[in-house]
Amino acid sequence: MRLITSLIPSQTGTGTAIASDKIDVAVVIDVLRATSVATVAMAAGATEIVTCREISDARSRALPGAVDPESTAPSLLCGERECRPIDGFQFGNSPAEYTPALVAGKRLILTTTNGTRAVEVASAADSIMLASFLNLSAVIDAIMDADTVHVVCAGTNGDVTGEDVMLAGAIIDRCQARLGSALELDDASAIAKAWWHARQPTPSPASLAAAFSETAGGRNLIRVGYEADLARCAAIDTVPVVPVRTRKSPTGFTAR
Amino acid sequence: MRLITSLIPSQTGTGTAIASDKIDVAVVIDVLRATSVATVAMAAGATEIVTCREISDARSRALPGAVDPESTAPSLLCGERECRPIDGFQFGNSPAEYTPALVAGKRLILTTTNGTRAVEVASAADSIMLASFLNLSAVIDAIMDADTVHVVCAGTNGDVTGEDVMLAGAIIDRCQARLGSALELDDASAIAKAWWHARQPTPSPASLAAAFSETAGGRNLIRVGYEADLARCAAIDTVPVVPVRTRKSPTGFTAR
Repeated sequence: MRLITSLIPSQTGTGTAIASDKIDVAVVIDVLRATSVATVAMAAGATEIVTCREISDARSRALPGAVDPESTAPSLLCGERECRPIDGFQFGNSPAEYTPALVAGKRLILTTTNGTRAVEVASAADSIMLASFLNLSAVIDAIMDADTVHVVCAGTNGDVTGEDVMLAGAIIDRCQARLGSALELDDASAIAKAWWHARQPTPSPASLAAAFSETAGGRNLIRVGYEADLARCAAIDTVPVVPVRTRKSPTGFTAR
Repeated sequence: MRLITSLIPSQTGTGTAIASDKIDVAVVIDVLRATSVATVAMAAGATEIVTCREISDARSRALPGAVDPESTAPSLLCGERECRPIDGFQFGNSPAEYTPALVAGKRLILTTTNGTRAVEVASAADSIMLASFLNLSAVIDAIMDADTVHVVCAGTNGDVTGEDVMLAGAIIDRCQARLGSALELDDASAIAKAWWHARQPTPSPASLAAAFSETAGGRNLIRVGYEADLARCAAIDTVPVVPVRTRKSPTGFTAR
């Protein structure tokens, strides 16, 4: 396996070891909180998650029949701006909101500040998977047979954020444990792995949540009153579901 | 001191802790080889180094009188494309070329693939300094009184390259050793520091050169026959000169 990492979405230079249309799997990471939310929502029974960059686009995609012409029910509007819920949307961007009672059997339209931009950068890949610490093991199982993997960290407003690079490092670490010298890494991947080892020599949900509280993304959440979400997004390996979108079926993410 | 790091020039998001026009010092890093070359050339007695992005721009800036109307001598053309010398230029991008006999008293016009792009990203700062492992201690001395420092890694063709992030980490490490808790870091800076510690627990010229041979920038140089330049750019703390350009005198870099 060849694995390359973008520490932020804008890192998409011609220097990459793999041409973007030759990537088997892109793994998109927005730990706090878009890809954690997507993981939880999918496990709670959402049938499909459609990501949009703009709020206006999300509203029109949520209308009955907009995504699926045969559907007469509106989709549920989900997302955030500056970490906060959006006026008129049914859901914000906290994993706590996405219970089976509220989302089972529903299609979700999700727009967030950083995560949906990362999905766009990843969209040339054969398939896109949404990764969080919650579904880490499931993601590793799902990518293990790929020849070329592109890990895309969403970052925070164009800057690197530590929690996304930690998960990138954890993914790389687990791939290396399984594949040994059959795993080829670019420099950004090696840097992410060093960061993961430095921050989490013995990973646990409690130590992860503590580390999140010191990152740019974590501090942003604490500032607007969502500190409890740090622990929710640190519950490592608790969800065996990966949201996946393929080039053959490019509308939304479904459970794998 | 507040210190932020761009691991690649395109990382210039609105999430940065410091507005770009509030930065006292930008430290530009292109270890292999533009900022190492600039350090060596300045120490060899070059009077000024003018950086240009395009080859055509470099040629016109080198004409007699183009930079300094009172100068009747042409400036020397220096730089590379794909690591190799440029047709008609007097110098390539190897530190070995820049001897006192050839450059003392001369103005140099330098255009390189990645380094000059990084200088442009840094150009809103009050002053820009060019850093290499060669002048590491001199750079630390020069930035120590700044309130806000922006470290900009040039990268390789838009991607992160390990040797630039190593030097960023070394700079951050030395600042922290001097300033302790008075140094405030963003996430990218903390990641660079972890990478530096992981790669160089006990730094030496030999271990640095060996580490360069495993980075994207180092492998590029080895591939085109410049392996000897790795050791030349790993000669840590051998040059007490920093090329500096200030907003008050924005044409070229001069020695500090």
